[in-house]
Amino acid sequence: MRMSELAERTGLPVATIKFYLREGVLMPGALVSATRADYGELHVRRVGIARALTETVGLSVQQVAEMFRLIDSREDDLFDTLGRALALLPPAVEPAADYPRARRVIEQLGQLYDPRYAAVAQLERALAAAEAAGIPMNDERLAVYGPHIRAIAEFEVAGVPAGREEAVEYAVLGTAIYEPVIVALRRLAHEDVAAKALGATPPAG
Amino acid sequence: MRMSELAERTGLPVATIKFYLREGVLMPGALVSATRADYGELHVRRVGIARALTETVGLSVQQVAEMFRLIDSREDDLFDTLGRALALLPPAVEPAADYPRARRVIEQLGQLYDPRYAAVAQLERALAAAEAAGIPMNDERLAVYGPHIRAIAEFEVAGVPAGREEAVEYAVLGTAIYEPVIVALRRLAHEDVAAKALGATPPAG
Repeated sequence: MRMSELAERTGLPVATIKFYLREGVLMPGALVSATRADYGELHVRRVGIARALTETVGLSVQQVAEMFRLIDSREDDLFDTLGRALALLPPAVEPAADYPRARRVIEQLGQLYDPRYAAVAQLERALAAAEAAGIPMNDERLAVYGPHIRAIAEFEVAGVPAGREEAVEYAVLGTAIYEPVIVALRRLAHEDVAAKALGATPPAG
Repeated sequence: MRMSELAERTGLPVATIKFYLREGVLMPGALVSATRADYGELHVRRVGIARALTETVGLSVQQVAEMFRLIDSREDDLFDTLGRALALLPPAVEPAADYPRARRVIEQLGQLYDPRYAAVAQLERALAAAEAAGIPMNDERLAVYGPHIRAIAEFEVAGVPAGREEAVEYAVLGTAIYEPVIVALRRLAHEDVAAKALGATPPAG
């Protein structure tokens, strides 16, 4: 399809498609003449992914381009590529030498503590914030969170496709795209449980 | 304590304390003379909460002030107050008349669909993004997420203190402050499950 058709199919202005091409979010179309390139279904799909990553996950266009570069890379180590891709996800947290709160939690869960995982620094900051707010993580809470979150993660990882490119794409997208789903489901579960506990009428808010 | 001591205790500049007072994040200190106010432990605690809500949850100082106004309000309906407080949490999503994806999911979970809950619009947007990214919510995934997230929410709501003011504060803080904890734990569980499945060495990222 022509660029104008790609714009129409994806609901984006042609200027945005051109911007995506310049920034490396989209790969160039196949040249069919000196002045015309042809775009395919992969382009349509990448635009959908790029919009989800920018609008819902909050990545910059440059971060999306870097994400696709990792997905398309043919490096050997799938796990290493996954780690690099996951490290692109927000929130950006300054690295430190040690993460005492996160380490305690991770070791208590029987998982490997590796400070090179970006999520370790994110967990440390989140645990410090919970502490500052007067609701520190404790053993009882962790004993509930641990198994339920693990069960969700096991289901999700089991769904990762076999192919290398598909695996990175699915893993990164699945991690990032389902975070706001899980967050919203938890808030709604809070409201449902509280409504039933309080015998309340729904809020007017 | 004097304002200078409050600043020292909380590690914030005096200018920030004054800004918090002006914006209504902190209640005024008790006047002990025409020119001196006295601050207490509640002020220290509020500063900790305010920092957690701005730095980790991403609320603006004005939103934090509004949150405290709700926590301190003496309105009758606890559930209604909770709903209003939760609606202040990001992400802000434009309201719509109907949320078909969210409604389907909520009804399938056996929960009450009420489009006035802010999290319904958030869930709809997150589900639309998952669809656009090519990983739509399906029955199998929902059957895993539903019970595990419900179990987490039931534990959390059971911990809500009995007093009205404490209940709103705990509910809002617990919802907001533990979201990044849960998100980080899930990412780490992904990496741990994947590492064990792939027999991988930790990433160099």
